[in-house]
Amino acid sequence: MLVECVPNFSEGRRPEVLEAIRQAAELPGVAILGLSWDPDHHRAVMTLAGEGEAVLESVWRATVEAVARIDLNHHRGTHPRIGAVDVIPFIPLGDTPMSYCIGLARSLGERIGRDLGIPVLLYEEAASRASRRNLAAVRRGQFEGLGERLSVEGGAPDYGPSAPHPTAGAVAVGARPALIAYNVYLNTADPAVADRVAQAVRGSSGGLRGVKALPMNTTSQGMVQVSMNLTDWQRTSIPAALEMARREAQRYGALVTGTEVVGFVPLGAILDAARYYLQAHDLSAAQVLELALMNEAVTTGVPYGGPPASEREED
Amino acid sequence: MLVECVPNFSEGRRPEVLEAIRQAAELPGVAILGLSWDPDHHRAVMTLAGEGEAVLESVWRATVEAVARIDLNHHRGTHPRIGAVDVIPFIPLGDTPMSYCIGLARSLGERIGRDLGIPVLLYEEAASRASRRNLAAVRRGQFEGLGERLSVEGGAPDYGPSAPHPTAGAVAVGARPALIAYNVYLNTADPAVADRVAQAVRGSSGGLRGVKALPMNTTSQGMVQVSMNLTDWQRTSIPAALEMARREAQRYGALVTGTEVVGFVPLGAILDAARYYLQAHDLSAAQVLELALMNEAVTTGVPYGGPPASEREED
Repeated sequence: MLVECVPNFSEGRRPEVLEAIRQAAELPGVAILGLSWDPDHHRAVMTLAGEGEAVLESVWRATVEAVARIDLNHHRGTHPRIGAVDVIPFIPLGDTPMSYCIGLARSLGERIGRDLGIPVLLYEEAASRASRRNLAAVRRGQFEGLGERLSVEGGAPDYGPSAPHPTAGAVAVGARPALIAYNVYLNTADPAVADRVAQAVRGSSGGLRGVKALPMNTTSQGMVQVSMNLTDWQRTSIPAALEMARREAQRYGALVTGTEVVGFVPLGAILDAARYYLQAHDLSAAQVLELALMNEAVTTGVPYGGPPASEREED
Repeated sequence: MLVECVPNFSEGRRPEVLEAIRQAAELPGVAILGLSWDPDHHRAVMTLAGEGEAVLESVWRATVEAVARIDLNHHRGTHPRIGAVDVIPFIPLGDTPMSYCIGLARSLGERIGRDLGIPVLLYEEAASRASRRNLAAVRRGQFEGLGERLSVEGGAPDYGPSAPHPTAGAVAVGARPALIAYNVYLNTADPAVADRVAQAVRGSSGGLRGVKALPMNTTSQGMVQVSMNLTDWQRTSIPAALEMARREAQRYGALVTGTEVVGFVPLGAILDAARYYLQAHDLSAAQVLELALMNEAVTTGVPYGGPPASEREED
């Protein structure tokens, strides 16, 4: 059961603290795919992946370390936050079901509440009530407003005490699909075009449900960018977002000069794109050689009749 | 150094022999991705993948088993062949260089020549001379004509004796890029359209260098098919072949209704397709989450500044 986990820490200025957190997270079977930080946001993002139980243990250890070293009373950054460890989303990889990630979120949340005495709020797919699905809503009032929010009727956390931890605040633990950061560049310097395209594709203004979009000026290149987040790529795919953006841009005479996937992308999303544009309706992940090789099931032998005639050594 | 190997055995009628060959090939670290056979061709194709040295050992053991059990003097099938083990191509996977596969071909060839007393002819990228690059040329005259071909001036094998093995003949061992079997369906029942499209795209008649193509009637569905082999996908990509076929078909008013990749396909070819159609010029394999996870290098830690800001848990 492969999962990704992207814990966010409220620390973006002390590299030695981040290094300690990274070391705490090191565990056999867990790949630390990245750790980035930003001093303005005063925030760091770690990307972990591996078997669910191992990833849970790894992020638990990182949480303990972060709680010991970060005091939110002295934390001022531009990014909203409720805790020293602010959010911990679990994300299914491959065939892992969302329900498994919800289970991991609950299990970790319970442990944090019980053993660290920190209130835990479950969010998105792991949320215990509709009002906590949206992370922005969970974080409203931030660290400074936590005491009041936790003490109101219905404000009790899912795990842990009903009062904020004095230095670590609270933690939002959740489960969600992988997020794809996808940018489309247009051959116009007119910011109004980017603005209109972003508005047309983003779900909140009537566009595609799984798309968040912002217009961006890309300074020097005489191009504008539509910066998108695809929050549910299995239902709203990269091609769906690109083709809608392309079509809208054409209304204003603008063409797509290029696109970029920022950071990691699930293989399934790349296969979706290949299936869509190649019209290869039946292309499956099982046909990808490197993946077949990863899949240990195949080493036990495959029944006769497996590979294609074309792999015969024809002339 | 990951490689694929696709040994072809001159046996397509005795499942127990194929099972013995399969068992001989079983080795830790080697994935047997497939074993298919065809009684008319009287031929079987095994697909192995793994670390080069392990794959070499696995195919060596399969070769020993096949040579012990197959007598070409009693072999009649529709597929041309020179040996009990007819051809053994090594194919680079991932970042493995072709030169590594050439080294494997030479190493295995030397061992077969020396320890089994079978003449070995190196072909394609591993060929020792231009006249042996083409497998069809290497196999000319087949098993029955081997004695004469090996004894003429310049006919000596690269390894082993200059006379055919009495039951196992000779073996062609080579290195080549992965082959992609790719079919394009057109919404016409007119075989002449498939014929013209195939002729336009195939390299031998002036089309794309890395493409072999045949027209096919797909019986019941009222569609024709252009059946292609892409022999060098890193230089002639799937999109290049599809878009040329699409354009040619349009000359006759025919549209592509779908395409299919038959059997295995390297991840790189899928990424190529995604890069091409998404115009995602800089999309790299390192961004594919499942692949990053496979790559053990990343478990040693990544410098700060890795993953994107968008992986922050934004609202």
